[in-house]
Amino acid sequence: MLTSEIDVDIKIQACGVCGSDIHTITGGWGAQNFPLCVGHEIVGTAIRVGPKVTLVKEGQRVGVGAQSYSCGECKQCKNDNETYCPVIMMDTYGSKWPDTGIVSQGGYSSHVRTHEHWVFPLPDALETTSVAPMLCAGITAYSPLVRNGCGPGKKVGIVGLGGIGHYAVMFAKALGAETWAISRSRAKEADAKKLGADGYIATAEEGWEAAHRCSFDLIVNCANSTKGFDLNKYLSMMDVHGRWVSVGLPEEEGPSIKPQNLLANGVLMGASHLGSRREMLQMLQLAADKGIKSWVEEVQIGTEELKDIVGRMKKGDVRYRFTLTGYEKVFG
Amino acid sequence: MLTSEIDVDIKIQACGVCGSDIHTITGGWGAQNFPLCVGHEIVGTAIRVGPKVTLVKEGQRVGVGAQSYSCGECKQCKNDNETYCPVIMMDTYGSKWPDTGIVSQGGYSSHVRTHEHWVFPLPDALETTSVAPMLCAGITAYSPLVRNGCGPGKKVGIVGLGGIGHYAVMFAKALGAETWAISRSRAKEADAKKLGADGYIATAEEGWEAAHRCSFDLIVNCANSTKGFDLNKYLSMMDVHGRWVSVGLPEEEGPSIKPQNLLANGVLMGASHLGSRREMLQMLQLAADKGIKSWVEEVQIGTEELKDIVGRMKKGDVRYRFTLTGYEKVFG
Repeated sequence: MLTSEIDVDIKIQACGVCGSDIHTITGGWGAQNFPLCVGHEIVGTAIRVGPKVTLVKEGQRVGVGAQSYSCGECKQCKNDNETYCPVIMMDTYGSKWPDTGIVSQGGYSSHVRTHEHWVFPLPDALETTSVAPMLCAGITAYSPLVRNGCGPGKKVGIVGLGGIGHYAVMFAKALGAETWAISRSRAKEADAKKLGADGYIATAEEGWEAAHRCSFDLIVNCANSTKGFDLNKYLSMMDVHGRWVSVGLPEEEGPSIKPQNLLANGVLMGASHLGSRREMLQMLQLAADKGIKSWVEEVQIGTEELKDIVGRMKKGDVRYRFTLTGYEKVFG
Repeated sequence: MLTSEIDVDIKIQACGVCGSDIHTITGGWGAQNFPLCVGHEIVGTAIRVGPKVTLVKEGQRVGVGAQSYSCGECKQCKNDNETYCPVIMMDTYGSKWPDTGIVSQGGYSSHVRTHEHWVFPLPDALETTSVAPMLCAGITAYSPLVRNGCGPGKKVGIVGLGGIGHYAVMFAKALGAETWAISRSRAKEADAKKLGADGYIATAEEGWEAAHRCSFDLIVNCANSTKGFDLNKYLSMMDVHGRWVSVGLPEEEGPSIKPQNLLANGVLMGASHLGSRREMLQMLQLAADKGIKSWVEEVQIGTEELKDIVGRMKKGDVRYRFTLTGYEKVFG
């Protein structure tokens, strides 16, 4: 399947630091195919394109996200559901190619070779450091919004104002929804308003859910952990048949859920996995058109710097994303 | 709120025996407002209608289901979601009227008084013993089907071939879907085929889920208990963004569910509560038009008979519903 004829070779310029990288290297998501180079929010230059490539031109600035291959032939792949392909699903790092046994390696490195379907030409309006984290965190937020009706006239909540959540607030607002940020304390209220939130809910406050009973059309749960969540209070805020869609992947066990929890307002509870190529290109264009910029801290790639930011990520000490740059200095 | 001007007095002729009755009297669903007369699949004659009643005529044969009141004024009530009304929700038995403290009483009795919105004129084509269990079990199966796109071109699964499930199979087929019954063993396969199922899955068989991977648009889970379910195997059969909707209300705790369980195909998991008046009338008409008949065993209402059938319900020894009749003999 690693046919270079349809692949693009990319010289990497920048890579976002995703929560997945931390879950992976700490073992929080379980055993991995170590040794492993993580990183799946890659921006670089297409330095070589295979003879069958039509979607990318040599010399273009391009991005690669968290998934890098699917079968391309099944019902799901043919219907913009390639991130749900049941046949083959290759993560950008840590997946084993079934034909060769080679483990895919990520973007904390000099180069990457990727099938053209998973290589996205980037609009000029988006700066490299800003666009990198959109390639995983951004699309993770964007896809469940557009797949679940986010738009004018809808009330949308975003739980968890972290890397993914800050995109979800910006995209929900850009898509025209009444957008509420939902966080434990008021510590991030000013940020939420700057990101475009129309309202803010602090779940540490008594009776926080009461004023919103039965009113949200969609809540995208971006929290990395739902420890201590009183899920029934959150769900009480959903309109009938409203949707609660999770994009965070907690390390701990999930809560016990029975139909009685979902019954009072017929909530639909789901989860979402990245987004299609089509959605990726739409999201990038939306960001370019609306001037959406990631809140990002630029960090020189390097061993010491990575130790430092992994520590900061674990503590949640980032608003709201790191992008590694300075690849020339390290890799030449 | 008990204003007799808009109420209908009904002389009861028959009442279905619902699993809810058993959960209630055994305490499986927790504390109840005892003493209590259960029964919420009521068929009878409207012997008196209040002066403001417009939906029911005196002398009509009518039905009453499991819910008997909602506020009638809120967004949900005005949008065919009165069974999700967040303001007031009165069960036909066991609920306390907020103004008087009186506890509502069900249909194992001579008469019932019900607000007209919750009283349903019955098509002549439907026999009394057959239509009674449709008023709770039937609508419980029907509403999630029509609300989740059951129809031609869709593949629909029904888990649990009991009182509700046997309706779900008949209605899914009547609505035009490719209909599969999903049960533990093959014991009910012949029944399922007679009910109209196109296919049958026995989950006791090794690899039962493999052939159906990623193919169901909707599964309505009618099982009364999900003990021992390998939920991930069920969910692996769902198409991307397929829906798993539960209508059974197990007594035991629910399984631990985390986003990772729903992620592979972006399943939406929900629950459903009865159905609107509009859906009830549509369901009854569909049953009349298509000649759908409940599989029902008729039982003389009486203390000894009830002891017997409660015991049989607990063992699941019913295919697929009891209807109590002979009210004249007992109540005169």
